[in-house]
Amino acid sequence: MARINVKAVEKKIMETPIPAVKRVALAYSGGLDSTLAVELLRRKFNVADKNIIPINVDVGQGKEDQDKAKDNAKILKIKPVWLDARKEFTEQWLGKAIRANSNYNGYPCSTSMTRQLIARIVAQEARKRGCDAVMEGSTGKGNDQYRMHNTFMTFAPELTVLCPVRDFDLGRAEEEAICKAWGVPVDEMISGGDDKTMWCRSIASGAVDLNQELPAKIWIWLVPPEKARKRPEYVDIEFVEGLPVRLNGKELALDKLVEKLNFIAGRNGIGRIDMFEDGIMGLKSREIYEAPAAHVILKLHSDLEQACITSQEIQFKKGVDAKWAQMVYGGEWYHPLKDALDAFVASTQKVVNGKYKVKLYKGNIEIVKRELPTSLFSPEIRSIKAGGFDQRWSHDAAKVRGIRFEILAKRKQVMRKLKRGKK
Amino acid sequence: MARINVKAVEKKIMETPIPAVKRVALAYSGGLDSTLAVELLRRKFNVADKNIIPINVDVGQGKEDQDKAKDNAKILKIKPVWLDARKEFTEQWLGKAIRANSNYNGYPCSTSMTRQLIARIVAQEARKRGCDAVMEGSTGKGNDQYRMHNTFMTFAPELTVLCPVRDFDLGRAEEEAICKAWGVPVDEMISGGDDKTMWCRSIASGAVDLNQELPAKIWIWLVPPEKARKRPEYVDIEFVEGLPVRLNGKELALDKLVEKLNFIAGRNGIGRIDMFEDGIMGLKSREIYEAPAAHVILKLHSDLEQACITSQEIQFKKGVDAKWAQMVYGGEWYHPLKDALDAFVASTQKVVNGKYKVKLYKGNIEIVKRELPTSLFSPEIRSIKAGGFDQRWSHDAAKVRGIRFEILAKRKQVMRKLKRGKK
Amino acid sequence: MARINVKAVEKKIMETPIPAVKRVALAYSGGLDSTLAVELLRRKFNVADKNIIPINVDVGQGKEDQDKAKDNAKILKIKPVWLDARKEFTEQWLGKAIRANSNYNGYPCSTSMTRQLIARIVAQEARKRGCDAVMEGSTGKGNDQYRMHNTFMTFAPELTVLCPVRDFDLGRAEEEAICKAWGVPVDEMISGGDDKTMWCRSIASGAVDLNQELPAKIWIWLVPPEKARKRPEYVDIEFVEGLPVRLNGKELALDKLVEKLNFIAGRNGIGRIDMFEDGIMGLKSREIYEAPAAHVILKLHSDLEQACITSQEIQFKKGVDAKWAQMVYGGEWYHPLKDALDAFVASTQKVVNGKYKVKLYKGNIEIVKRELPTSLFSPEIRSIKAGGFDQRWSHDAAKVRGIRFEILAKRKQVMRKLKRGKK
Amino acid sequence: MARINVKAVEKKIMETPIPAVKRVALAYSGGLDSTLAVELLRRKFNVADKNIIPINVDVGQGKEDQDKAKDNAKILKIKPVWLDARKEFTEQWLGKAIRANSNYNGYPCSTSMTRQLIARIVAQEARKRGCDAVMEGSTGKGNDQYRMHNTFMTFAPELTVLCPVRDFDLGRAEEEAICKAWGVPVDEMISGGDDKTMWCRSIASGAVDLNQELPAKIWIWLVPPEKARKRPEYVDIEFVEGLPVRLNGKELALDKLVEKLNFIAGRNGIGRIDMFEDGIMGLKSREIYEAPAAHVILKLHSDLEQACITSQEIQFKKGVDAKWAQMVYGGEWYHPLKDALDAFVASTQKVVNGKYKVKLYKGNIEIVKRELPTSLFSPEIRSIKAGGFDQRWSHDAAKVRGIRFEILAKRKQVMRKLKRGKK
Repeated sequence: MARINVKAVEKKIMETPIPAVKRVALAYSGGLDSTLAVELLRRKFNVADKNIIPINVDVGQGKEDQDKAKDNAKILKIKPVWLDARKEFTEQWLGKAIRANSNYNGYPCSTSMTRQLIARIVAQEARKRGCDAVMEGSTGKGNDQYRMHNTFMTFAPELTVLCPVRDFDLGRAEEEAICKAWGVPVDEMISGGDDKTMWCRSIASGAVDLNQELPAKIWIWLVPPEKARKRPEYVDIEFVEGLPVRLNGKELALDKLVEKLNFIAGRNGIGRIDMFEDGIMGLKSREIYEAPAAHVILKLHSDLEQACITSQEIQFKKGVDAKWAQMVYGGEWYHPLKDALDAFVASTQKVVNGKYKVKLYKGNIEIVKRELPTSLFSPEIRSIKAGGFDQRWSHDAAKVRGIRFEILAKRKQVMRKLKRGKK
Repeated sequence: MARINVKAVEKKIMETPIPAVKRVALAYSGGLDSTLAVELLRRKFNVADKNIIPINVDVGQGKEDQDKAKDNAKILKIKPVWLDARKEFTEQWLGKAIRANSNYNGYPCSTSMTRQLIARIVAQEARKRGCDAVMEGSTGKGNDQYRMHNTFMTFAPELTVLCPVRDFDLGRAEEEAICKAWGVPVDEMISGGDDKTMWCRSIASGAVDLNQELPAKIWIWLVPPEKARKRPEYVDIEFVEGLPVRLNGKELALDKLVEKLNFIAGRNGIGRIDMFEDGIMGLKSREIYEAPAAHVILKLHSDLEQACITSQEIQFKKGVDAKWAQMVYGGEWYHPLKDALDAFVASTQKVVNGKYKVKLYKGNIEIVKRELPTSLFSPEIRSIKAGGFDQRWSHDAAKVRGIRFEILAKRKQVMRKLKRGKK
Repeated sequence: MARINVKAVEKKIMETPIPAVKRVALAYSGGLDSTLAVELLRRKFNVADKNIIPINVDVGQGKEDQDKAKDNAKILKIKPVWLDARKEFTEQWLGKAIRANSNYNGYPCSTSMTRQLIARIVAQEARKRGCDAVMEGSTGKGNDQYRMHNTFMTFAPELTVLCPVRDFDLGRAEEEAICKAWGVPVDEMISGGDDKTMWCRSIASGAVDLNQELPAKIWIWLVPPEKARKRPEYVDIEFVEGLPVRLNGKELALDKLVEKLNFIAGRNGIGRIDMFEDGIMGLKSREIYEAPAAHVILKLHSDLEQACITSQEIQFKKGVDAKWAQMVYGGEWYHPLKDALDAFVASTQKVVNGKYKVKLYKGNIEIVKRELPTSLFSPEIRSIKAGGFDQRWSHDAAKVRGIRFEILAKRKQVMRKLKRGKK
Repeated sequence: MARINVKAVEKKIMETPIPAVKRVALAYSGGLDSTLAVELLRRKFNVADKNIIPINVDVGQGKEDQDKAKDNAKILKIKPVWLDARKEFTEQWLGKAIRANSNYNGYPCSTSMTRQLIARIVAQEARKRGCDAVMEGSTGKGNDQYRMHNTFMTFAPELTVLCPVRDFDLGRAEEEAICKAWGVPVDEMISGGDDKTMWCRSIASGAVDLNQELPAKIWIWLVPPEKARKRPEYVDIEFVEGLPVRLNGKELALDKLVEKLNFIAGRNGIGRIDMFEDGIMGLKSREIYEAPAAHVILKLHSDLEQACITSQEIQFKKGVDAKWAQMVYGGEWYHPLKDALDAFVASTQKVVNGKYKVKLYKGNIEIVKRELPTSLFSPEIRSIKAGGFDQRWSHDAAKVRGIRFEILAKRKQVMRKLKRGKK
């Protein structure tokens, strides 16, 4: 990596024209981008400390991240507003994601949700606290800037949006250099682009090259299959109306259930994702994620839907779910189409109930038992079939269904005849 | 199981009214249904032996099945027409299935294809050989009757279709009993409803109950993960225009490649499917399949598409692929919509090229290396990105993209105002 | 038309085997099929008069039809149960149809709805009144048999379904002949297959040949454009949440509004439909309908949606609306997928408000004025645009949006190079 | 309108930083934007006259526009390259549009196509002639900038794109003022934003306010219904493989046929469009178009498809056609997904053949005769139906189709029972 010329970076920052702002609410995670942002507000935007309002939103990123945020706040001499949104995240966001089989080409939407949740809270706080601007630390290469911008526009369209890393065109190394020069804490441990939610951890956000191997130490939940436990582990999960509510017989709030299951599934080699992702701007990146609990829950939810909802719903819901994931990934959680998709999905989930016993073993999730009292395949339901169905009915049914093909065959003859006639 | 009263079954058969036929082409696999069919043509339909034309179509069901077909032909004293359609099946059918990511809710369409291929050949032979009817052995509970009927109507709409097991309402046990009474060979080994193609083996076709455990001995390719090899096995596969053409460095015809890969992937615990399936008549069944090669090939094809085709193609192709699978499963291979879907798919595959190294280990397929010269993520392509993209462009791009949300926010205010106005 | 041999028809009826039934609820419209049905219950099914429960459901077919039903009841000496479902039809069914732009390839679903509503009421009455069977008069060639059967299965799956015209294989002329012979009233005026609801009148149901001209006298509301009023007529219509609530300034219940508008739009030449329709069995028929009010309302509703809901909703809702129409046409009103589609649609309609002035003139519907306070195009909303948007933003926005094409161009170069390399 | 301060506009232009370019190919239509562009190249970009390469592409905009382009060239003292793309436009573009029922929420894509065709030709000429930049005259508020930019990136990604009206932030009045000051011809007749192709004429591009009435004089082809001919006019049109090939018995190339039909249909009051359109940037505008021939051709093509292609194709093609229109409107003609959609569409059109007689009368298009030898409804085809179909088949077909509803009914009972159990 080239040596950074701190003076040049400072010059670039100082020469970039900026809008005038007086009081700024800042999305503060405690990571590099947001700590630098605080100092930029002081040095470049000339905002007095009493008018810098850092907002920290806990969406389940974990104790380690939150402790770091607190430590860095002390060093920076700021007093962030600490807000806990974990309950809302689990109940209002994650539940919808599970019911929609949340899957953007293999990625279980997570950061894509939390950024929008954080942006909404920051926007609302900003208005409440009399700010004229909001600030956040996204780069100009990724998806988060769009997610946050859309949400700011939704909840505080009158405020100025500041996005300094992007708008001063700062690279990662430049940020680190300028932070060191300015005495802003730089934590080497929080690597560039990682983002963790309880549902899925994103690793190195798009910075992985095509044939870079994944070292075993990058995982926090996952034990790779080869090193995972040698004996299978059995887990019981119960779903009510499309959501997991009970783990190994114990009723648990969704966040607790996910937390436990990440641990259990992770130690059995489950949850690795290595994929190509189409970013909002249309560029592809290779992305690495780990999401042990999400793997288990989404696989079972999908199996359960195939048992409980009709074939026609399954086929149509594929398109609804795909659009849902596209929109949420694309920063459109608060778009009215997304609400309409949610209404569709909710309407299908009342009957999605069942108990599973699964065997977890070195990366495999094998369903060993299903209890599905309200499925369309339960013994109660099938008795009707055994009782009433006579295979001879199918004689005429096949004939009626085949008429279309008879007509098509007849048309082929007509077309052949017409062709011959022309010659 | 209740004892079968052979006399009663004979009576049922003899009393059922039938259409008059003179010369009948019969889809002959050598299994129970088709051997019984031969004898029914003799005893019930009064067709002379010279007018019974059994047609055996080899679609890759394997030596064991074909040997049995030959043995039974001798016992029945018939001389089937033996036709080899393996090349057509691989080149004209399987290739299309791979490119369309052939997946009917988790099932890689296979028997659904071969039945239609067989029906087409039988219909064409029937016309060529002056028959006035075609016969096939489907039951009235399954999907195959529709698949074959549609295809018969497409290629020989003027012929009478005979489907005796269904139309005489025979159960499996009744079939066996009547065969024994009539001296027709009954092979205990070929269990009810199994069907094997090179691409996917269907086990016990829908007769598996909800919580029946799957004994290890039911698999022919698969070694369950716990008993699979202890060391990972590495495999190289190369795709050209969406199709695998090379295995471990050796160019292979698709059927040979699939055959080898079934063996290799199977011994590494890959290929088990346990799912709910929506049959053509709308009934759900639990289905068990094994398809080791299909698992590997479809996973890689899909990964390759995500790297090589555009985001918009990926999203739209989801719907095309889902429809493709629905139609092929539903017995509509020869429907013009299916042709149009094929045309769409073919148009996307020219750029789907790449080499993979995958690690197979106890049920896991891990991609360890990709060479993707024509992907949209290749280093050659990305150089353009590095060279040209300036993150500051995103400032205005985010603003333009966010205008929609600004307008929606404004509308919310208007609606609130109107509401207040009404009060 | 060939002369009908009444004796032969009677013989055919008497020889057809039937299920034993004791007490039968009958969908009674007073038309040919249902009056014949009453007599068949007496003569063929041997049901005593006290066990024949004719149910007449008023869904807005109009006074003429209902009077005829009463007259024929007297002649037949039956006392039907008279039930008024007009309110339910308008509020629960028609409203949903309007919001979903109800359009099955050009046909505004109507009879497809009423048949299912009637079948539900008949099934419920049958259970309440201790019947063991339901009877209805559909033929075996059309769509209604499926619509009614599905609904019977939904609300009274345990009852036997009798469908005599179909199951005795009676043609129209045979029905008339046997009615005359048996003293059942045959009303020449009610022509074969016509069906009228307040929303759309179906004319001669599929019996129109390809090049048959449409005589002017077939219409009841419509005055063909050439003969329509010479001066334009202006109409004001107001929509609230996707539904028309006010006509020419007067608040009206939906059925009254539709009734008035049929009259006004009809005399201005609006409402003729001449189209090919894909029946449930996959056969095409040429269908003639008249639906003046539906034309005006659906055109305005669609215009209003384009003004009030987002582009993304409009695009996705196309697919939802198309599926809605397919399902309702196909007799699947009570299918859970249909409910989920309704939930989607309902979620989009809160903002669909506006007032229209339209000019009706000889078949043309011209919008001359729109007041759209909650549209995304209202002056209130656009002020934001004028205020904030700077066309220079588009410079970078276009660049970012165009990157995808730059990458595709680069790939083309790579592919060309690879090709050359191979040679 | 406020008086324009020419000095201020000149200052704005002169102070805006620009990229250095040497030789520039310019899309030259002869309208205000492109004539101003020539002068900007001279005065602001300092490009010598020999390095200004104006390219005029004839896509059927008509003699009047082309004459004006020539006159203005003389005044400007430039010698444009005159290229005729009418044949390509008709054969390669318009044909595809017709087959795809080209309809973007009511608008028959036209300018959206020609801009991309022009941009491709300009890009190719630019490379051939050694330019380092391309220039075009779009504003920053509309769709054309994206259409042209995408195409430039596709065919000449290495060239600089100049878009001066947008990048100097010039309003219409400013453009006129500066032109007058600089001696650039300003033609008052060509009103702001009009764009004419043979297929559809766009009027005042989005500048129409919500309740602005449309004066009769804005139309060039259309005579409003009230003033249109008093007698109906009959027209014969024949389609082969989805395209109109014969008008009133005479074989015509597509451009000639469209030209004639615009005249005929226009004088009968056909072709007015007044709609809300979702622009590429997500803003809605009210748009006025006239497209008489397009109305007739698209209506007949759609009727013909309903007669000739299967129900399943019709349903799926709706989604394909909608996506096609979205992409073409959105400037993605050269996107690989668009190619794949074309492949789908082409595959469906072989059978789309037929002759129509239509009555045109004061805005109405009434089909009075259809000859459809290869439709699925031709008498030849229907003979099969009459011959073979027995309505009694439907008895069992309805039962089989209804099983799904029986199972759903059963499930409802189970759910009710479970609910009661819980209480």
